[in-house]
Amino acid sequence: MSKIPVAILGATGSVGQRFLSLLENHPWFAVTALAASDRSVGQTYSQACHWILPEPMPEWAREAVLLPASPESVQARIVFSALPADQAREIEPLFARAGMAVCSNASAFRREEDVPLLLPEVNAEHLAALLPIQRQRRGWSGAILTNPNCTSTGLTVALKALQDSFGLRRAFVVSLQALSGAGYPGVASMDILDNVIPNIGGEEEKVEWEPRKMLGSPQVLAPLRLSAHTNRVAVSDGHTVCVSVELENLASPAEAAQALSAYQPCLAAADLPSTPRPVIALRTEADRPQPRLDRLTGRGMTTVVGRLRSDPLLHLKFVVFSHNTIRGAAGGSIYNAELLVSQGMLI
Amino acid sequence: MSKIPVAILGATGSVGQRFLSLLENHPWFAVTALAASDRSVGQTYSQACHWILPEPMPEWAREAVLLPASPESVQARIVFSALPADQAREIEPLFARAGMAVCSNASAFRREEDVPLLLPEVNAEHLAALLPIQRQRRGWSGAILTNPNCTSTGLTVALKALQDSFGLRRAFVVSLQALSGAGYPGVASMDILDNVIPNIGGEEEKVEWEPRKMLGSPQVLAPLRLSAHTNRVAVSDGHTVCVSVELENLASPAEAAQALSAYQPCLAAADLPSTPRPVIALRTEADRPQPRLDRLTGRGMTTVVGRLRSDPLLHLKFVVFSHNTIRGAAGGSIYNAELLVSQGMLI
Amino acid sequence: MSKIPVAILGATGSVGQRFLSLLENHPWFAVTALAASDRSVGQTYSQACHWILPEPMPEWAREAVLLPASPESVQARIVFSALPADQAREIEPLFARAGMAVCSNASAFRREEDVPLLLPEVNAEHLAALLPIQRQRRGWSGAILTNPNCTSTGLTVALKALQDSFGLRRAFVVSLQALSGAGYPGVASMDILDNVIPNIGGEEEKVEWEPRKMLGSPQVLAPLRLSAHTNRVAVSDGHTVCVSVELENLASPAEAAQALSAYQPCLAAADLPSTPRPVIALRTEADRPQPRLDRLTGRGMTTVVGRLRSDPLLHLKFVVFSHNTIRGAAGGSIYNAELLVSQGMLI
Amino acid sequence: MSKIPVAILGATGSVGQRFLSLLENHPWFAVTALAASDRSVGQTYSQACHWILPEPMPEWAREAVLLPASPESVQARIVFSALPADQAREIEPLFARAGMAVCSNASAFRREEDVPLLLPEVNAEHLAALLPIQRQRRGWSGAILTNPNCTSTGLTVALKALQDSFGLRRAFVVSLQALSGAGYPGVASMDILDNVIPNIGGEEEKVEWEPRKMLGSPQVLAPLRLSAHTNRVAVSDGHTVCVSVELENLASPAEAAQALSAYQPCLAAADLPSTPRPVIALRTEADRPQPRLDRLTGRGMTTVVGRLRSDPLLHLKFVVFSHNTIRGAAGGSIYNAELLVSQGMLI
Repeated sequence: MSKIPVAILGATGSVGQRFLSLLENHPWFAVTALAASDRSVGQTYSQACHWILPEPMPEWAREAVLLPASPESVQARIVFSALPADQAREIEPLFARAGMAVCSNASAFRREEDVPLLLPEVNAEHLAALLPIQRQRRGWSGAILTNPNCTSTGLTVALKALQDSFGLRRAFVVSLQALSGAGYPGVASMDILDNVIPNIGGEEEKVEWEPRKMLGSPQVLAPLRLSAHTNRVAVSDGHTVCVSVELENLASPAEAAQALSAYQPCLAAADLPSTPRPVIALRTEADRPQPRLDRLTGRGMTTVVGRLRSDPLLHLKFVVFSHNTIRGAAGGSIYNAELLVSQGMLI
Repeated sequence: MSKIPVAILGATGSVGQRFLSLLENHPWFAVTALAASDRSVGQTYSQACHWILPEPMPEWAREAVLLPASPESVQARIVFSALPADQAREIEPLFARAGMAVCSNASAFRREEDVPLLLPEVNAEHLAALLPIQRQRRGWSGAILTNPNCTSTGLTVALKALQDSFGLRRAFVVSLQALSGAGYPGVASMDILDNVIPNIGGEEEKVEWEPRKMLGSPQVLAPLRLSAHTNRVAVSDGHTVCVSVELENLASPAEAAQALSAYQPCLAAADLPSTPRPVIALRTEADRPQPRLDRLTGRGMTTVVGRLRSDPLLHLKFVVFSHNTIRGAAGGSIYNAELLVSQGMLI
Repeated sequence: MSKIPVAILGATGSVGQRFLSLLENHPWFAVTALAASDRSVGQTYSQACHWILPEPMPEWAREAVLLPASPESVQARIVFSALPADQAREIEPLFARAGMAVCSNASAFRREEDVPLLLPEVNAEHLAALLPIQRQRRGWSGAILTNPNCTSTGLTVALKALQDSFGLRRAFVVSLQALSGAGYPGVASMDILDNVIPNIGGEEEKVEWEPRKMLGSPQVLAPLRLSAHTNRVAVSDGHTVCVSVELENLASPAEAAQALSAYQPCLAAADLPSTPRPVIALRTEADRPQPRLDRLTGRGMTTVVGRLRSDPLLHLKFVVFSHNTIRGAAGGSIYNAELLVSQGMLI
Repeated sequence: MSKIPVAILGATGSVGQRFLSLLENHPWFAVTALAASDRSVGQTYSQACHWILPEPMPEWAREAVLLPASPESVQARIVFSALPADQAREIEPLFARAGMAVCSNASAFRREEDVPLLLPEVNAEHLAALLPIQRQRRGWSGAILTNPNCTSTGLTVALKALQDSFGLRRAFVVSLQALSGAGYPGVASMDILDNVIPNIGGEEEKVEWEPRKMLGSPQVLAPLRLSAHTNRVAVSDGHTVCVSVELENLASPAEAAQALSAYQPCLAAADLPSTPRPVIALRTEADRPQPRLDRLTGRGMTTVVGRLRSDPLLHLKFVVFSHNTIRGAAGGSIYNAELLVSQGMLI
């Protein structure tokens, strides 16, 4: 079987690089086009890109010529978007209208009622429920699928396991987020050496809303309410999130541990190339998860939970960790694309 | 007037060094004795101490010979204790019995009903209420006074201003704590470079309990309930704490800002050499407080509050910052000693 | 006596901020004008400046309105320039022509034969030798004075003490340079966390040439030859430089230590407000100097030397440390201006 | 073919962990014994070991019971030693006498005339030349082989390529070394955050001597002379070394680049499981090698060279980078063991 041709929009940035790296040797997808902003179009990828990943730039990409981010220029059936939100809002619909499936990491369309906000191991069923509505309403032969904000990602996976077993009422969330989440050049070194920045613009609103969409029914937000504080710390990759939750039905830490460890995604999402193995890794040490040690669990796709214990105000406290540019960005979009293909919904 | 002779127990460690540094040129106190553990006794301070502060080791200390930590060896009226908790439990009562006032940074006696747990700008009145009880019950002519855990310190100052104006019901607290809080050598560099450690042994219990003692009446805990997550991050000095609070009486962020900015300590604590000026600094920028920029506010004694805003679950969210080895440790003990002296309670 | 009015060009950048901070309460100078690039002109300083220093922004500056960097807009007798080299080349001569003394941190004119490249504690005599030539040749009533590159600064001070006592033939130099030397935003955090960048553009050429001008006679380069490797490391402030030198006349480490410790600047430079006290601090510990502990020696103006020992290839090895934005930039320009004034050469 | 049983001495430390990690799935060797210090003997590996590597602890090791480091307790044909030098001096000969081949990372025997100091891609021929002498002189049926200090490792590989083509006279060497080289807990975080430590005890003597033994004939030091400065920086893994060299026969940077790129080890070392592929990687970018990006080149076994250019004092300047706990420690010992086996010299 020949591979499905895919393109990357915003290919030179931090998330774009992850797309390239994760798509090298992908069993289903072959990158056929790299698109970038106007000032880079026409340059080779190695000329235009300041590569910041420890794994080397894929050889095939070095001489690839960067294309404009327009459906006329890009030949592909799936388009992975690492565009900034404002550009995504303009450009992604052009691709959807032209018949391509846009699997987007941008925030531009996450709040649209007919756009799936998707973590396959959490709410795979939203895809089949929303895509026909989206296509009909917008008259698109293609589609736009989104994955959530990087901090919402691991958080929502862990909350889903608890919701399924005990129901969820409220959650307090405080993040310690990695530098790569700010893109490149992103955070200035003088601003983070020996420092914490106790704010990330727009992030708290996303973390307080996105999990409700994913944990709800299609087009109905979950009743869960959240409060978030988001912080930047001197970590390269991987977001650490402290969570306290109030459940519908009381559960002991042991019962919650059991629910988290036993969590399985629905069948549709359970055996795709990017399915996290395991979906959730529960650590029982006193001081885990840690970014340096846990970021590559399940090749960066696994959600790692630790420090599960009782909370004096609500019911449970724990720490969630997830790789922000793999599970929380490029890897998430790819997993979504795999679900789309396996469900037979790619046109 | 001649200065009051004071001693430092545990003088070579991280907090001990802060005591030396802060007591140099103190207007009321003169250090007359430095005590250390058995293996250092008899050495000069400069031989035994791996000095880690950016300000240079005080000249007078270099050749001072380290004494045993016993009341027979140490001539002083006030004893500042930077001992580990287990040693403090054994050694501090010996000094109190011998007539000296022990101003301790150790946790050993903080939970004793008759021992003041004291932040002068918060609960100065606890001193006069508890010290006579302590002396009578224990038969001591001296005394033990304690200051709280470094994370509880700034948190409690901020909570006090809110409690006075609006009453307090609950608080959710997540800390991002500095390395110096772990002493020296403390945290291994391999454990914190490009990393977060999502646990600090014993810290959460302290943060969930100590503010209740200080915000209550003498011998009656405040009804406030707290939940804490504590984390270690790659910051040298200064603890950042994300807080969400539920008040007794609803207040807007603007009203809370007013209460925090206007907060004044009681008269007894308001004009001592170590009184923070201001007690609380309220920052209105989107990204403050930050350790690198705010740690020396008010010479490290001021509590800095920022990001005051509404909380979707409780009432208010904000960030509190405080220097952990100045306001949160050595500076706190010294401020306590100043209160003791100014109240005429030093024997 | 009323203070001399001074202006700062490039006032919002990393070095510009140091100028503001160091000139607050200067005994001779009063800042009367802050100039910035076109996009900031007309804004207040606090609007336009992302302040990155731990000491707070001076109160008087907050509401100061930024002026264009032209002699028509700026009323001052001395102009401190923190401009980038390309802008300095255009703009600084306009001020000199208009009768102002430009004390510049930029590299634009350092290599001009008639422009003093000045460290007062090293080559104060160059000022009187070159300024009349400069004024005559260029027809300026004002002047341009420069201070060297930040890495050359401490290196040249240490080399000067050795040159005076023993003569100098060759020096190997490897720097470990701080982030603040790259300005703001400067180095991206993703590029330096857990990393070293083994190159700083244009820096090695400066370090191999500038000491020769300062250690030579006016208009004659010193015969000393240098080889430099320059590296960026994760340090906020302060450059560490490893040096091996070949002397004209053999000296033991003890003799060199004596020469370094005893070094005194010429009388003209010895008692100015910014004169380093001491000029050179010699550390004898095995592991000093260190940026975190030594950067504020002599309020950041002192050159710190340590690890003095024999070199197996040349004669001596040692480590030089100097604060790059104080002694190596803004503080150096100010010290130069003080020399100019005290020598009666300010028009 | 069944695998050769091997043991690890000092298995719980930083280098010991690397041995475990690198030997998992080794094609020739199977770990049959883990030995540790007295206080850990009898514990399981997971109880006794604070695992600090990002790759997870091998499953088979978790329940392995730690043995005493004595030949009576340990059944193996090859013994990998990650012991501290003082213990290595006592313990390694016991194993050699008992017939085992000790492949040691310790410095204890590196300077002994009859002990190979070995980098297979540099001086494989020393093994056959020295081992018979060692066995005869000491009456051992086993043997001791050593690999050099981590900083000498990459340096010597690069120097070897130049020596072969042009001859070598002198080298000036300044290292920026990673934290993992100091073991665990090693460097305190307070000592290295925002800092450089300009000294590593005993390191400079090793770097100035060890390359001479490896680049010489068996039992004859190479005439090359070296001068070293060694520094600790805030990097987790991988040593960066700035080098200036004087050659016997002048070479241009282009000629040197050719010699480095073309360098091939002798046949005996060229196709072993741990042979670096390539032995030397030459980077041509202006800012490489960098620890974060280059540390895993050739699975951490490759020596990376960059910034090759003319030196104003000697002939050439360049930067060498090498992974200190893989190529520079555990991986080096394993490569040595592979050479021993492939040469038929394992008894």
